Amino acid sequence: MLEREKIAQARELMKREEIDVWLIYCRETSEIPEPALMVVAGTPVVWESALIIGVNGESIAIVGGPDAPALRAKGVFETVVPYDEDIGPALRQALSRLNPRRIAIDYSEDDVVADGLTHGMYRLLLKRLAGAPYGDRLTSAAPIVTALRAIKTPEELRRIRRSVASAEEILAQLTKTLRVGLTESEIHQWVSERVRRRNLAPAWDAAHCPTVTCGANSPIGHTGPTDAKALPGDIIRLDFGVKENDYCSDLQRVWYLRRPGEVKAPAEVRRAFDTCRKAIEAGFAALKPGVVGWQVDAAARKVITDAGYPEFKHALGHGLGRNAHDGGPLLGPRWARYGRTPLARVEAGNVFTLELGVMTPAGYVGLEEDVVVTASGAEYLSKPQTEIIYV
Amino acid sequence: MLEREKIAQARELMKREEIDVWLIYCRETSEIPEPALMVVAGTPVVWESALIIGVNGESIAIVGGPDAPALRAKGVFETVVPYDEDIGPALRQALSRLNPRRIAIDYSEDDVVADGLTHGMYRLLLKRLAGAPYGDRLTSAAPIVTALRAIKTPEELRRIRRSVASAEEILAQLTKTLRVGLTESEIHQWVSERVRRRNLAPAWDAAHCPTVTCGANSPIGHTGPTDAKALPGDIIRLDFGVKENDYCSDLQRVWYLRRPGEVKAPAEVRRAFDTCRKAIEAGFAALKPGVVGWQVDAAARKVITDAGYPEFKHALGHGLGRNAHDGGPLLGPRWARYGRTPLARVEAGNVFTLELGVMTPAGYVGLEEDVVVTASGAEYLSKPQTEIIYV
Repeated sequence: MLEREKIAQARELMKREEIDVWLIYCRETSEIPEPALMVVAGTPVVWESALIIGVNGESIAIVGGPDAPALRAKGVFETVVPYDEDIGPALRQALSRLNPRRIAIDYSEDDVVADGLTHGMYRLLLKRLAGAPYGDRLTSAAPIVTALRAIKTPEELRRIRRSVASAEEILAQLTKTLRVGLTESEIHQWVSERVRRRNLAPAWDAAHCPTVTCGANSPIGHTGPTDAKALPGDIIRLDFGVKENDYCSDLQRVWYLRRPGEVKAPAEVRRAFDTCRKAIEAGFAALKPGVVGWQVDAAARKVITDAGYPEFKHALGHGLGRNAHDGGPLLGPRWARYGRTPLARVEAGNVFTLELGVMTPAGYVGLEEDVVVTASGAEYLSKPQTEIIYV
Repeated sequence: MLEREKIAQARELMKREEIDVWLIYCRETSEIPEPALMVVAGTPVVWESALIIGVNGESIAIVGGPDAPALRAKGVFETVVPYDEDIGPALRQALSRLNPRRIAIDYSEDDVVADGLTHGMYRLLLKRLAGAPYGDRLTSAAPIVTALRAIKTPEELRRIRRSVASAEEILAQLTKTLRVGLTESEIHQWVSERVRRRNLAPAWDAAHCPTVTCGANSPIGHTGPTDAKALPGDIIRLDFGVKENDYCSDLQRVWYLRRPGEVKAPAEVRRAFDTCRKAIEAGFAALKPGVVGWQVDAAARKVITDAGYPEFKHALGHGLGRNAHDGGPLLGPRWARYGRTPLARVEAGNVFTLELGVMTPAGYVGLEEDVVVTASGAEYLSKPQTEIIYV
């Protein structure tokens, strides 16, 4: 079972980080999800809840009465302690029994998936622990949570492969459907409908997944589709993935709409495509356990700037898993906005996107592949796009 | 437009609370949503973002380059400032221009919808403001955000009414489909399929929406459906709502499966139903602007305990809107776990559930209606269930 696999992995990481207790403290996770909760508990909570994982094998879920049956049914936490009115007594009692020297809680300046404790809940936790000696023993769980999320177990990899395959199947269907005159919105709608029919979810918010750009006037970035039509001489680009069985894919693909009489895309489009392809290959070649994130980014970025293109304004690659942006080491430049994430070392089992693009007069050429880090290098999870697809 | 309606409302609340600037500070909201963000911006963000609303009419969105087009397309924030590497300079500059005495940020011990700032982001914000005099001027935005979320505008009410109507339509269809021998899981699946076919979402997580209980042995609470079959003599109870156009409904309905020869449900089931119905009516009668949440709960609770039933282990009613548990004043008892929310005063425009139940040998009788507070009292948004539905 996935949750047990992840809890076992968490205990190994707790040993490495000298953490005695990992405390996930959350409430109303349908409103504000606690990213670590679903990984280890596999079920949401409504009332204020404390999920306690001890390094020596204890696992205690202190939850509101109505949340207890789901936790018990899941069968992951050994002890489920329901409360009716006040979580405080059971929480202090559990901690007093374990008497941890270091208690890790989920906050991180750098990694959103390790930052599931809200500031209000942090303040509330200090109140609940008032009078007990544990407030001073709190530390960030980021070293555990980030690695837990970033290093995929076999079951997680199986799910990501399946999610990538589903996205690729939908994109292959799309190739047969694309034609001159379709608008970005119509393409978005067509793809969304295929996602729904398969009972899948888009990998990120539905309004922007897929992102569809047609031609050179379409704004690039996390933007919604417009009524711009795909015309002869345009590049159509999709940034798209699905969420399947809780795990995501994230791909970018480009098509070119030939003008009457054209056999190939114009030379500048082909050159842009080939440069992007080479840059992704350069990133892929640099990717292996032990390398630092920014070095992988730099390898790809250099191919783009050496070819005389402006550098892409984002990281080469981000973690991929339960979320399309899954946290963990970042294959990105050392910019302030990325914090320390580009300084983290890549580990076997990490799954990344490799993505970049350049603007051309025909539209934005953007490519994105999904890869897993192996013991000695990396392996593509997607079938890389090696040629422009002609419509 | 909904977002503009809500920003205008926010400025009125800022005046009342003597707040000069409301700062929403967030990132990767597909992983950890910032509940206030969607209310005022209507679009998610990926990079670290600062959304600044000044009491005097300024609105500035400082966002990563890729997020800027969506913010601009939405057209709610007057000024959209994109950054590439570091949000700090633009953030300090914007604050320095507004020079606010009090800056409200989104944390709350009591109200999850006002608690969208994670602890890691709070720490990061202090770093970004280091050297500037604003760190000391931070205060909780909860008085603004809680009221903003809880007092519905006309457009929000229109959407909730539509969402309630859709849930009622699905439940009416279900009545025609229910029969002896269906399992809880089959009923859950049937309802989920109707939600999907209407292109709606469940009002809370799909595994637990609807909650289905058949007979007396089914666990009550936020639990998934089992393979227990609905048998003659059983009560079937659904806790169910949909999310339509971002707004939720939340209803509980009960059916009774007659045994061969039975015309009505057994007397104890009918007495339980009538008591629940009266208790909801007592809560409804007590609900009006100015009343304190726990008083409404107490009016309903008394009907249950006066009839000799054990009191329900939850609040009578919670806010309903963008989420099935929408924050704001709670119609609940003064239990520690509810913090100060049962002490808040009800205001016109608040939308609540009224829900309670009692256990019987035939199963759990649970009723839940949706209501809006008017100038002088309250109005049902749902058609209350006044009689047991027979199958």
